Amino acid sequence: MEARESGRSTGTEAGRGGMLERYLATRRATLALCEPLRREDYIVQPAADESPVKWHLAHTSWFFETLVLDPSQTGYTPFHEDFTHLFNSYYESVGARAARGLVSRPTVAEVLDYRAHVDEGMTQLLEQGALDGEMEFVTEVGTHHEQQHQELLLAACKQVLSQHPFRPPYVEAEGPPVSLQPTPPRWIDHAGGMVWIGHDGEAFSFDNERPQHQVYIEPFQLGSRLVTCGEYLEFIEDGGYEKPELWLYDGWETVRSQGWRAPMYWEARDGGWRVYTLGGLRQLVPAEPVCHVSYYEADAFARWRGARLPTEIEWEVAARNADADQGTLAEQGSLHPLPDVPAPAGGPRQLFGDVWEWTMSPYTPYPRYKPFAGYLEEYNGKFMCNHMVLRGGSFATSRSHIRSTYRNFFRPDVRRQFAGIRLARHL
Amino acid sequence: MEARESGRSTGTEAGRGGMLERYLATRRATLALCEPLRREDYIVQPAADESPVKWHLAHTSWFFETLVLDPSQTGYTPFHEDFTHLFNSYYESVGARAARGLVSRPTVAEVLDYRAHVDEGMTQLLEQGALDGEMEFVTEVGTHHEQQHQELLLAACKQVLSQHPFRPPYVEAEGPPVSLQPTPPRWIDHAGGMVWIGHDGEAFSFDNERPQHQVYIEPFQLGSRLVTCGEYLEFIEDGGYEKPELWLYDGWETVRSQGWRAPMYWEARDGGWRVYTLGGLRQLVPAEPVCHVSYYEADAFARWRGARLPTEIEWEVAARNADADQGTLAEQGSLHPLPDVPAPAGGPRQLFGDVWEWTMSPYTPYPRYKPFAGYLEEYNGKFMCNHMVLRGGSFATSRSHIRSTYRNFFRPDVRRQFAGIRLARHL
Amino acid sequence: MEARESGRSTGTEAGRGGMLERYLATRRATLALCEPLRREDYIVQPAADESPVKWHLAHTSWFFETLVLDPSQTGYTPFHEDFTHLFNSYYESVGARAARGLVSRPTVAEVLDYRAHVDEGMTQLLEQGALDGEMEFVTEVGTHHEQQHQELLLAACKQVLSQHPFRPPYVEAEGPPVSLQPTPPRWIDHAGGMVWIGHDGEAFSFDNERPQHQVYIEPFQLGSRLVTCGEYLEFIEDGGYEKPELWLYDGWETVRSQGWRAPMYWEARDGGWRVYTLGGLRQLVPAEPVCHVSYYEADAFARWRGARLPTEIEWEVAARNADADQGTLAEQGSLHPLPDVPAPAGGPRQLFGDVWEWTMSPYTPYPRYKPFAGYLEEYNGKFMCNHMVLRGGSFATSRSHIRSTYRNFFRPDVRRQFAGIRLARHL
Amino acid sequence: MEARESGRSTGTEAGRGGMLERYLATRRATLALCEPLRREDYIVQPAADESPVKWHLAHTSWFFETLVLDPSQTGYTPFHEDFTHLFNSYYESVGARAARGLVSRPTVAEVLDYRAHVDEGMTQLLEQGALDGEMEFVTEVGTHHEQQHQELLLAACKQVLSQHPFRPPYVEAEGPPVSLQPTPPRWIDHAGGMVWIGHDGEAFSFDNERPQHQVYIEPFQLGSRLVTCGEYLEFIEDGGYEKPELWLYDGWETVRSQGWRAPMYWEARDGGWRVYTLGGLRQLVPAEPVCHVSYYEADAFARWRGARLPTEIEWEVAARNADADQGTLAEQGSLHPLPDVPAPAGGPRQLFGDVWEWTMSPYTPYPRYKPFAGYLEEYNGKFMCNHMVLRGGSFATSRSHIRSTYRNFFRPDVRRQFAGIRLARHL
Repeated sequence: MEARESGRSTGTEAGRGGMLERYLATRRATLALCEPLRREDYIVQPAADESPVKWHLAHTSWFFETLVLDPSQTGYTPFHEDFTHLFNSYYESVGARAARGLVSRPTVAEVLDYRAHVDEGMTQLLEQGALDGEMEFVTEVGTHHEQQHQELLLAACKQVLSQHPFRPPYVEAEGPPVSLQPTPPRWIDHAGGMVWIGHDGEAFSFDNERPQHQVYIEPFQLGSRLVTCGEYLEFIEDGGYEKPELWLYDGWETVRSQGWRAPMYWEARDGGWRVYTLGGLRQLVPAEPVCHVSYYEADAFARWRGARLPTEIEWEVAARNADADQGTLAEQGSLHPLPDVPAPAGGPRQLFGDVWEWTMSPYTPYPRYKPFAGYLEEYNGKFMCNHMVLRGGSFATSRSHIRSTYRNFFRPDVRRQFAGIRLARHL
Repeated sequence: MEARESGRSTGTEAGRGGMLERYLATRRATLALCEPLRREDYIVQPAADESPVKWHLAHTSWFFETLVLDPSQTGYTPFHEDFTHLFNSYYESVGARAARGLVSRPTVAEVLDYRAHVDEGMTQLLEQGALDGEMEFVTEVGTHHEQQHQELLLAACKQVLSQHPFRPPYVEAEGPPVSLQPTPPRWIDHAGGMVWIGHDGEAFSFDNERPQHQVYIEPFQLGSRLVTCGEYLEFIEDGGYEKPELWLYDGWETVRSQGWRAPMYWEARDGGWRVYTLGGLRQLVPAEPVCHVSYYEADAFARWRGARLPTEIEWEVAARNADADQGTLAEQGSLHPLPDVPAPAGGPRQLFGDVWEWTMSPYTPYPRYKPFAGYLEEYNGKFMCNHMVLRGGSFATSRSHIRSTYRNFFRPDVRRQFAGIRLARHL
Repeated sequence: MEARESGRSTGTEAGRGGMLERYLATRRATLALCEPLRREDYIVQPAADESPVKWHLAHTSWFFETLVLDPSQTGYTPFHEDFTHLFNSYYESVGARAARGLVSRPTVAEVLDYRAHVDEGMTQLLEQGALDGEMEFVTEVGTHHEQQHQELLLAACKQVLSQHPFRPPYVEAEGPPVSLQPTPPRWIDHAGGMVWIGHDGEAFSFDNERPQHQVYIEPFQLGSRLVTCGEYLEFIEDGGYEKPELWLYDGWETVRSQGWRAPMYWEARDGGWRVYTLGGLRQLVPAEPVCHVSYYEADAFARWRGARLPTEIEWEVAARNADADQGTLAEQGSLHPLPDVPAPAGGPRQLFGDVWEWTMSPYTPYPRYKPFAGYLEEYNGKFMCNHMVLRGGSFATSRSHIRSTYRNFFRPDVRRQFAGIRLARHL
Repeated sequence: MEARESGRSTGTEAGRGGMLERYLATRRATLALCEPLRREDYIVQPAADESPVKWHLAHTSWFFETLVLDPSQTGYTPFHEDFTHLFNSYYESVGARAARGLVSRPTVAEVLDYRAHVDEGMTQLLEQGALDGEMEFVTEVGTHHEQQHQELLLAACKQVLSQHPFRPPYVEAEGPPVSLQPTPPRWIDHAGGMVWIGHDGEAFSFDNERPQHQVYIEPFQLGSRLVTCGEYLEFIEDGGYEKPELWLYDGWETVRSQGWRAPMYWEARDGGWRVYTLGGLRQLVPAEPVCHVSYYEADAFARWRGARLPTEIEWEVAARNADADQGTLAEQGSLHPLPDVPAPAGGPRQLFGDVWEWTMSPYTPYPRYKPFAGYLEEYNGKFMCNHMVLRGGSFATSRSHIRSTYRNFFRPDVRRQFAGIRLARHL
């Protein structure tokens, strides 16, 4: 089996019960994210290139129905034959994505029925152990796929609500005290040399993390924590958004054409800054990690500080032995990245969770990269041009979804996702 | 009072009770139009320059709250202060209309509460006879305003549902038999000469129908009925959409840039044509009036037939003594224009109702035109450039809303409204 | 002959010699306009919807070659077969007009050769009296066509040079003294009633001026002279460009999207205004007629003044007996409209020449309008939608080209042509 | 001196006389490229993001005037003070590049005078040995800068002439025989391992080629010659442009939105393909290297062939010891890439010249990259995002300009430059 070779778990690790549990937990987590919403919020398309909440709910179910239920059950009848077309992300016709906000039917209730129907079928198959190795692997991919969509869904909720003149909160929540002092930043040395990069072995990974391979890198230093809002504010106040010499050519064009003056969701008011968060609009907290910046902004900030962003190799080397539990991940229930906390000297902190970290690495295939087989072939490889790699996950990422080899990727002008900045430099 | 002079009813005609009845009937009619909808349908914005159903529901209530309740009640507290901003159509900021589909809150339920709240206040005022003449007049304008929005709302419903891949019907309904024979068209002569045009007297009219004034016109002929789908199909089959010489310059540019090949809502299938109607997708019925054509198409069709469109003056002269009840108006409950029925020789038929009739008259002020005063000043005059006049109402127009002097106006490329064609020519 | 009926001269009036003389004078006048240009100036396309100077030179020759030489000479061989395609304005393919600035060949020298070749052929035919009535009529149309292009060509020169950072003058010239006092404006009464409008008889006119017909109009007043820059400056200083209530809906949208703050070619500098003219950039002269305003600006200005623009009917009635020589026309050699001069009480001044006068009349066909036949059919009728009528000619219009029935037409947002404002109002 | 450290020649190598000779040869070569043009061709802007020929001529002179003459001569008076603004590529205001085709003045003659003036000043300085080390280095950069513009200029000539309906040739020239057989392709092995990459030492290089550094790479194979038109035609005929699975996501979007069906300058005619070349439109020659493909097309072709593009590291390793004279470079005077010729077994051929070779490497900084100092800082680093590296030069590249470490870069959708395809794969 092609897919087996290029990236998969054996199934022995998790076992049947493990997979069922993982499946159900993932599905429940998606619905939990929707609880604070009104029915109307599911329909609005946040941007031409982002999907409404309803679409995310349906598409993640379509994945299991089309790629697992249908091939695994003889004579399977789809829940609704039109859904196959509506909620498929493959080979979309021109403009289709931009038009997702035009589709009022099926209703949210019908989509929830669809989810329940798929869950019933999947539960039955997983309980019976009726999936072959291939199907079990696709199921595992499906749960990771859904975890990715959870993060997109939460970002969509934020964007939808933020565009409303009233700025309603997703849920009412308070931030940390404005007066909180950030921890002092340190540089942490790494020796460089020949390193192994990428994922190997039986545990699950996406195809783009494989094959494991060797890379030679120079010695470098990594920032001990994420860049804070307070530090980013200095950049703004120093005229960062008005100095073309700090920016990449495309970054400066974007700053000008979009009128950027601060990260997304920052609003100047009464001489200060307020930040729209999932907990509502509140004062800027200088100690918090800066979030919702594009690659262009991360790069310009780093240049202004006399530093640079890390490569994805450097980040992975540094994170390999890091404790993923020290950062803020979805299980903690925070709706915003949290400030770094004082800690005894040690390795870099906040590597996992809080915010995705922009690296200076364009998203390219590893040597001898081989995409997943079949339907999943287009999952990752298609995007290996004009995207930058981000690492480490955010407060919206599940602990069971992230690992040191995980490669996320956005276009360099994207700001709606939960992404921030860590600095690096050569020794 | 300024408005009184330029167009209004005395109130004596309808009286207090009459106005309350009219108010409540209008408000009920709006809600009745929404009954077939799912909650999700209210949210979708059908096009960048057209509003979602929810907005229509709220905006028509905003009109009464802001222009009647607030000035009439000392210390009136708005239902929700933000609604004043959200549902106001005046002085919108750039892009605001295009963004109405982004506003998920207030929910539909909250908007229905808003309507109920406004209705309660209005009922109380009207029952008490607490409105002065000015406010009574604004109330009357408000009911006509809402009747206009009923038609926009129904067109919005149609467009929203039509954009769905499943083409769900608004309500299931059958059309007339495909085999129905159209009545034979006749030319009806008019002598021309000096004619009085426009509205006078105490009965309600919009400002743009006034003042009544004299115009000199040449003798002309008017088509006895609306142009049918069958006749329009001949135009298509004769290559009407491929012959630039039939089209106005801007019409031809639009045909090419939009790829028009038939009226909106016509779909070529299996060598024939199907038409999406509020009753669902069904076969084209040749005897039905053609609907959802732009001015450009109406003009090109007329040229192809060796005729022209009537001027609005000619139309009004012909309609002055016509029986408005012979056409299909909203009270009949039809969701589509109906075929002309055989009748003894007589004046033109279908003048009122069925479809709005494009005239060749650009929308301009009548001599000595004076806009309504105050808030209502911008109601009509603002649009007296780049729009064409339509006359007569459609199947979606209330009987109490239409009259022979009524001037509707759309941009010449608009197809989403219920507009069709009547021919004219000089003797 | 179709064309003969719908608008033409007999030829007897001018006679053979007259037509040759008119032909040659027109052709020479076109070349004279190009004298101040450098070769490079001929190539630049001033705007996506306006043609380079080279194209105007070639297209006006194409007219005579294709519509007169070719049909009049057996076996005529075109100067260059590709020119027929390149310089034809009919049935252009999508985007063709926007791409005229991409066509470097033929060179300007080759186009001048083309002109000379056509002139030779035409001279021979006209000297020999070899043209039949139809061809003689088309020749006359061709000279008027070329006179229209002279004005477009001069406007193109102005726009090309104005877009240059150095603002080079077309020819160095001084304006009138800045201190010149404008003549006081007066209102001149007209009684209205039944009037005859349009062109009749044998003398040349375009098809859109025919047939002569009766119209009934109300009494009105017309401004005695054109609106001056000084008066328009008051409008600006009173916040005219910031008050939406003064503007048509489409006008206000254009003001906002284009960032208009003053007429085209006005530049704020050092607290005052400078105006780019064909004579170079110079100080604003308050007594000069305002020029390069759109219909939207003319309409907003008139509303601000408590007046309106005249209808084209009113203008024609007032101009019928006016002396066309009292205004500034092309023969005077001025490169800018001139201030009104003190005159004994009398009829309106500056009706002819100086600047085209926006009327409030949309451009529509006269009753029983019949386009020219054959190739010329599309000359005028195609544009009878979304355009406004202008009357009277400008300083760039030849005396032999203008008359009181002449109907020019632009889109309401056009500012590049030499158009200004005269006020009117009802008595 | 900053620049000295990050990339420069000593000057001892070439010496004074060498630099003068290089300067003059470069300047002459630029003018020689313009000889076939008519004056009108210099003015047309080939595309919104590409400059007219006139601009290239002036801008390359501006470089020497502003960066060498002015700082080297006390009290230097610029040739024309406005040129400093007009022909500066730094910090352009919004839209300025797109508007270069609007600037008719200075005339071509004036720009040629400008060039002569600058040459005179530079010759004097170089003859006198009056330049310090810094200025000598900037002069050397200026000659390389001008060599880059020569290639852009020739591509601009091609695009300008190709957009003309007549498709005039730049110079009349015949291609190789259509029947020529391509050489058979071979795979050439490379062992990989630790390799040194980048430029070191005193000889000139751009900053982006430095510093030299070590990289570890896997064993790989490189195609022995460039991909031919015949091979690319197989891809087209196999439906390459209709199969989304062959394309990157952004590539497929571009194929659809641009309607790509073949490389730029290919025209389907009479069931075959014709190719517009600088020698005119002629039949496709299957043995010629394919040219004018984007990165997206190169990538899709490689995927279709079961191969991939080389990385820039792989290319450089293979080219390090290659003979640059075996390919077609500008000195040979060919106006099109030439077919590979039979050769005894050996290393890859056509590495230098013929067409730039797309690599799969995004354009990123080398570790410890340091931009040139001062004015030159923005030369290369600004573009290190959203561009792909190309290697090896084309038939339009001067021999003295290219080397194995040279990094060219274009956006992945660019097709107007002389770029083609070489395949690679892992062993």
